[in-house]
Amino acid sequence: MVLNANSGIQLPPISETLRRTTPGAEMWLYKPISCLDDGHVMLVEYMGSDESIAQAARVSYGAGTKKVSEDQALINYLMRHRHTTPFEMCEMVFRVRVPMDAWRQWIRHRTASVNEYSTRYSVAIDSAQKTDPKQWRSQATDNKQGSGDYLSEELGTKLSEAEAQLQHAARDIYEERVNSGVAREQARKDLPLSTYTEAYWKIDLHNLFHFLGLRMDSHAQYEIRVYANAIAEVVKDAFPMAWQAFENYHLNATYLSGSEQEIVRIIGSFPVTAAKLEEEARKFFNNPPDKKMAREVEELIKKFHQLNFVAK
Amino acid sequence: MVLNANSGIQLPPISETLRRTTPGAEMWLYKPISCLDDGHVMLVEYMGSDESIAQAARVSYGAGTKKVSEDQALINYLMRHRHTTPFEMCEMVFRVRVPMDAWRQWIRHRTASVNEYSTRYSVAIDSAQKTDPKQWRSQATDNKQGSGDYLSEELGTKLSEAEAQLQHAARDIYEERVNSGVAREQARKDLPLSTYTEAYWKIDLHNLFHFLGLRMDSHAQYEIRVYANAIAEVVKDAFPMAWQAFENYHLNATYLSGSEQEIVRIIGSFPVTAAKLEEEARKFFNNPPDKKMAREVEELIKKFHQLNFVAK
Amino acid sequence: MVLNANSGIQLPPISETLRRTTPGAEMWLYKPISCLDDGHVMLVEYMGSDESIAQAARVSYGAGTKKVSEDQALINYLMRHRHTTPFEMCEMVFRVRVPMDAWRQWIRHRTASVNEYSTRYSVAIDSAQKTDPKQWRSQATDNKQGSGDYLSEELGTKLSEAEAQLQHAARDIYEERVNSGVAREQARKDLPLSTYTEAYWKIDLHNLFHFLGLRMDSHAQYEIRVYANAIAEVVKDAFPMAWQAFENYHLNATYLSGSEQEIVRIIGSFPVTAAKLEEEARKFFNNPPDKKMAREVEELIKKFHQLNFVAK
Amino acid sequence: MVLNANSGIQLPPISETLRRTTPGAEMWLYKPISCLDDGHVMLVEYMGSDESIAQAARVSYGAGTKKVSEDQALINYLMRHRHTTPFEMCEMVFRVRVPMDAWRQWIRHRTASVNEYSTRYSVAIDSAQKTDPKQWRSQATDNKQGSGDYLSEELGTKLSEAEAQLQHAARDIYEERVNSGVAREQARKDLPLSTYTEAYWKIDLHNLFHFLGLRMDSHAQYEIRVYANAIAEVVKDAFPMAWQAFENYHLNATYLSGSEQEIVRIIGSFPVTAAKLEEEARKFFNNPPDKKMAREVEELIKKFHQLNFVAK
Repeated sequence: MVLNANSGIQLPPISETLRRTTPGAEMWLYKPISCLDDGHVMLVEYMGSDESIAQAARVSYGAGTKKVSEDQALINYLMRHRHTTPFEMCEMVFRVRVPMDAWRQWIRHRTASVNEYSTRYSVAIDSAQKTDPKQWRSQATDNKQGSGDYLSEELGTKLSEAEAQLQHAARDIYEERVNSGVAREQARKDLPLSTYTEAYWKIDLHNLFHFLGLRMDSHAQYEIRVYANAIAEVVKDAFPMAWQAFENYHLNATYLSGSEQEIVRIIGSFPVTAAKLEEEARKFFNNPPDKKMAREVEELIKKFHQLNFVAK
Repeated sequence: MVLNANSGIQLPPISETLRRTTPGAEMWLYKPISCLDDGHVMLVEYMGSDESIAQAARVSYGAGTKKVSEDQALINYLMRHRHTTPFEMCEMVFRVRVPMDAWRQWIRHRTASVNEYSTRYSVAIDSAQKTDPKQWRSQATDNKQGSGDYLSEELGTKLSEAEAQLQHAARDIYEERVNSGVAREQARKDLPLSTYTEAYWKIDLHNLFHFLGLRMDSHAQYEIRVYANAIAEVVKDAFPMAWQAFENYHLNATYLSGSEQEIVRIIGSFPVTAAKLEEEARKFFNNPPDKKMAREVEELIKKFHQLNFVAK
Repeated sequence: MVLNANSGIQLPPISETLRRTTPGAEMWLYKPISCLDDGHVMLVEYMGSDESIAQAARVSYGAGTKKVSEDQALINYLMRHRHTTPFEMCEMVFRVRVPMDAWRQWIRHRTASVNEYSTRYSVAIDSAQKTDPKQWRSQATDNKQGSGDYLSEELGTKLSEAEAQLQHAARDIYEERVNSGVAREQARKDLPLSTYTEAYWKIDLHNLFHFLGLRMDSHAQYEIRVYANAIAEVVKDAFPMAWQAFENYHLNATYLSGSEQEIVRIIGSFPVTAAKLEEEARKFFNNPPDKKMAREVEELIKKFHQLNFVAK
Repeated sequence: MVLNANSGIQLPPISETLRRTTPGAEMWLYKPISCLDDGHVMLVEYMGSDESIAQAARVSYGAGTKKVSEDQALINYLMRHRHTTPFEMCEMVFRVRVPMDAWRQWIRHRTASVNEYSTRYSVAIDSAQKTDPKQWRSQATDNKQGSGDYLSEELGTKLSEAEAQLQHAARDIYEERVNSGVAREQARKDLPLSTYTEAYWKIDLHNLFHFLGLRMDSHAQYEIRVYANAIAEVVKDAFPMAWQAFENYHLNATYLSGSEQEIVRIIGSFPVTAAKLEEEARKFFNNPPDKKMAREVEELIKKFHQLNFVAK
């Protein structure tokens, strides 16, 4: 992630305000973070601070001003118990430049406000996401919707060449259409999904955490994960207490379902051997030992390994 | 509307920011506007400015910086053509103190974020909205859900006395319960709807305009209209261009339905006499001249009077 | 619009239900309506009826059962006065097949529920929207984001040939990638926006009317208008009273802004000559007679022509 | 919970439909479930079924029809991995009668559609929730917002008498106002929060599960929990597979935060003694052994007890 400190963007003048400010957010304003080969994320507005979250929560309690030192504990409590409305008091607006393919996933989050570059009104941005020969990913074998290891550079080189040709052909045809007088709204119809678009994206902190929880996850597609991670850098600095709570109680949290808790209780004592765990889990889920392991058994075993419930 | 400039509220320190500021919003921060006998509305945060709206719209057009002088025309265009997303880029947070009865209407707007004083957690606010003897309103005769003229002061005095007694009795019983050890969440069950509550209320400018359009309307209940009007004062100063567009293209706009346009075309020439208009309208809506005037005919005639389509 | 009555879709069994049914909706269930060259819209579920809307409104009035004959008047009243919540009681689920380009516009409506075909999980649908040589549209001259007349068939033939080549090349490269072991989520990155996708789309009737109001408009892009018109066919039959109210009070309605009403009052008598109208409008909007006509003046004149306020 | 099978409600006629039906939902249509002393919940409409959820998920996978026997496993998978959109395909509409105090909490769920009885338009419902002398609850000592044990019947008798007097006085004053000609919208201002209101409440299954997760929780107020439990009865029968998944992966699930997992790993072997657990937890959270136990330590210990991580 590269910081374009000197990106040629003209900073707005510094103003005085009675609003809450956060040093971490001020620091990131108008500083684009590069994403992928030609994209970025840039904070352009924000509202509120960790203190705003605490204060909104305290109106519920009818309490007066408290020491800032207690804000972290209060924010932890709110996050732990899913009291989400105080986090809605904070807002962030990002200017993003992103391939349409990733944007298709992004836009599915319905709680944000969006103003996107219009290719009906203007000529489409002349940039499409290119793939480095070393960065073609294989189809995951254990996950029908994910990626596995990188493919060989030799194969990647061929794939990247074909990619470049296709992108050029698509752009040429687009421009021929526009030059022939075809309406922009129709000319764009065969642009590749890799074409960059730009947008203002505004979301409150509660819904942003929901977005980050899904899109920073290792199962999220690499391309959107890059953007989620870039946004996370800004949030960490802008709302450090809320971030810490989010990380501990949401991002790094794990669930134990009712069934999994039952198995914990049945086994009674940890660590156990891997064989014993599998035996109990299969028994519980009616998954005979000679059959392929049921997905839920598999997930449980992975989770219990992570918890060191299994003897090494 | 009285401005409590010296309300004992301690102002936060002035900070420097790279964000957009609006002088009109800064002026209103932490200045409560009195509403009803013991309520208020107070701006505590905001985000964006008229310029933000124009800039968000321009990302759609892929256009660079334009002259501020063109912002009003652009904002008018957006409002006229119901391009609402740029208005979502601005946010306001108000601290409000309002009787629960009006709050019950207020909270029906689902697009806002709310943190309300909790009477499970804390003792209920010891204040209920009182009615001045001169301000008891009669049931409207032409509108099943509205108010008409004020009732006599003589009657009002009796009503206000009974009101005071009831409110005292309700508060005494509430406090007896709490003092007897009843849980606050149960003790509150018979508090009158006139009891004041407090909340932080956050909403974006597009949805705020929707709220104001409904709640500033002459058919809205007086109590909530007082709050809507107070909020409008702040919006006018904070986002003057957006307000001007809202006022002209929404608040003061009138619809002509397909039918009404048809009647305009049938009549062909204005002004007409009241009798002629009624005749044509009844004919169009199959409402015979000897029958009570249909609601829609009545509304049309009122609208056409306002447009001076009827000769005086 | 062609009805694929015999589309090979296996109808579910007929069941008995205590729920409200509407004959018009039942008629459309599982009957796809063809859209564009390879798309469709098909109703797969619905909830409620005109009667549900009336009944939901009546709970507000605390009233008992009324005659069905009064439902249309009540529904008209609700629509006329923007009482929108009763329309939220009805739901429809459509199965749609649509080019991603149109889908990008469609999905901006945030109040719907969506389950879309996943090209991470499955191989992308092998179909892209093709343009008939006679259906290439020119860029509109009076509207920066719209289309004008059709281009010549001669030019269109060339454009359609180039389109076919590009679509084939893009598909070939996609399949080469998949066959080379590239993850589907990455392989798809250069698919053209014309590629078809499929989805279940669920929306309540109030929000559907909002969608239709925008997407049936003559300024909406042709491709999405085709889908909006297809959906409208279903709604007309399924909720005939609500449709009638929508058509009259929303779709065919026109606004008169505060300014436009002022001009109506200033002029006082209609019809006027075109010259007189332009003179008054320019005066009102400070648009000198020797300058290019301001956009707002132009819109006003067009509207007043439609209302026959201008003598022919 | 009493089933008013014979509630005098006239059932609508049975119709034929091509839509999906669920026997469990059909069974509950128009059967009110009594709640509190004079409230109820009654299913009046629904859309979809367990099969609809599975089918909506399968469109994402581009897969054809699968065996119903696999639906439960698929629905479990969706719930486990928070793939929430397929659950949005199902809808339920309830008619509810509920005290305004509980309704104030209920209405905070912004994702539902609501049509409520209007006390501007109609005379307020003449019923207020009454408390049995044995059902006055004490303030919880360990939870600032909850209830503890019941108070003595002796004290309860006095409290119930005072409650009855207050409710009568409030109703008398309300009726005096109405009879004196006061507008209904103003007359209602001092009605007690215990006054019953009625509404149609529509929500999709995903958001309903969110509501139930919060309102069936033991920390929810008793009054709203009664309604949540009644609704749960209907959901269990109407969408049995979805309910089973919700119960296991949401309602009965427990989180382990990042910190709690760390402690699990530090301790390494379970069960431990209570003293050892407290020691490690205090160490981890910097909560010295001689200080009052920090809230988070307390919650962790309670959770670990439930998991039988502590030796009995």
